[in-house]
Amino acid sequence: MTTDLNALATFAEELADAARTVSLKYFRTAVDADAKADASPVTIADRETETLLRDMIEAQFPNHGIFGEEHGSVRTDAEFVWVLDPIDGTKTFITGRPMFGTLIGLLRDSRAVMGVMDMPAINERWVGIDGTTTLFNGQPVSTRPCQSINTSWLYATSPTMFTEDHFPAFDRLRDASRYGNWGAECMAYGLLANGWVDIVCEDTMGPYDYVALVPIVEGAGGVMTTWAGQPLNLDSDGTVLAVGDPTLHIKAMEILAG
Amino acid sequence: MTTDLNALATFAEELADAARTVSLKYFRTAVDADAKADASPVTIADRETETLLRDMIEAQFPNHGIFGEEHGSVRTDAEFVWVLDPIDGTKTFITGRPMFGTLIGLLRDSRAVMGVMDMPAINERWVGIDGTTTLFNGQPVSTRPCQSINTSWLYATSPTMFTEDHFPAFDRLRDASRYGNWGAECMAYGLLANGWVDIVCEDTMGPYDYVALVPIVEGAGGVMTTWAGQPLNLDSDGTVLAVGDPTLHIKAMEILAG
Repeated sequence: MTTDLNALATFAEELADAARTVSLKYFRTAVDADAKADASPVTIADRETETLLRDMIEAQFPNHGIFGEEHGSVRTDAEFVWVLDPIDGTKTFITGRPMFGTLIGLLRDSRAVMGVMDMPAINERWVGIDGTTTLFNGQPVSTRPCQSINTSWLYATSPTMFTEDHFPAFDRLRDASRYGNWGAECMAYGLLANGWVDIVCEDTMGPYDYVALVPIVEGAGGVMTTWAGQPLNLDSDGTVLAVGDPTLHIKAMEILAG
Repeated sequence: MTTDLNALATFAEELADAARTVSLKYFRTAVDADAKADASPVTIADRETETLLRDMIEAQFPNHGIFGEEHGSVRTDAEFVWVLDPIDGTKTFITGRPMFGTLIGLLRDSRAVMGVMDMPAINERWVGIDGTTTLFNGQPVSTRPCQSINTSWLYATSPTMFTEDHFPAFDRLRDASRYGNWGAECMAYGLLANGWVDIVCEDTMGPYDYVALVPIVEGAGGVMTTWAGQPLNLDSDGTVLAVGDPTLHIKAMEILAG
């Protein structure tokens, strides 16, 4: 079995290709949303996509762990653990907006080392591999310089994603930024990697929401951690702060800390 | 000069084709945002697109009025008045998200009778003509049934688009809906026309933000007015309520009224 990250990224892109076929089959058809324990909508497409990805991983890398949004986790103490969000932006998907993504991340010894973000409906893909430059549709990308919060463009998915305790901290940062924008879902991190957005600040995120994105942001020159500057892995607290220009990291953390 | 709405819609689609060329030329290039009086970002692309559209209208229909977001208004007392938003979702455009649109609306004696919403980056277009069925990429579409607010899917662009006075009313409606979603910009109204979303509720909107959308929503079977149920024209108060199922209209207005 390979432990070469480039080979694992090639496999991850095969997973993304397969996921596309399933998600696009259901996109903009009448897919009923049912209620998960946390009341977020889950669709047949979500579950069918994750099942397909898990089967492919089990067949190729039976010793690797898997942590998925829909179907739980196995072997999370393995050296390599795949972290899967078959459809990030389920509400976006259900409402026919082409901004949903498939997130395929890989942890090695609890560190995010590879990630693919695929946007099936708009045919855009980011690939991040530890130690290499992030690729957007096959082309290298980098974050842009932005050294002060008040000139930064910020994204978050929704004001209701923040806990009551955390919202005031986020709102301070949003208020200090030049413009706060909503609703980009996972794509916000890709826009940051490409140098069009400076800060993404979110909360109540699961590992499937962020593991794939860390190598994409960092391979483009950015920094991505919890609000307290801790690495993002299976044990993180759900807060996520990504900045394009590393000099913004400490400044944003200070505003969040109050 | 024709006063046939179908012919005017064909012309509006030619305007949309021309606008696409300009906006896509600038999309995801480094376009500086400067500050308008209201502090929203305006780009070269915005202004160049509107200038092109105005020139085309002046050449073809010199007696028609024009009301544009960027370059002001002329002959707004004419029988026909074109209402233009060259790039709806400027912040979205500037941050590289493919969700911006071009809105081309037509008022006849102050009533919204024709509208085109074009999404250049994702190649999607809605056309609404008074008295006919709305077309999405050339295919007829219709809203879906949804008879209670608590099963409805709702969109708004941003929580910060509401005045302080209006936000609590909006928030009651969002809270009463099944799910509230953010950031779809003008596309939210198209998603509603296609039967994937049930309510769009917004505030502080200009005529260029809504005139083109009224015939699209109504031609698909929906209802679109101010929060108080008044027609949307150049003199409206900036509140906008669109529902897919007409039976939601009075229910939503009651919740907004408190």
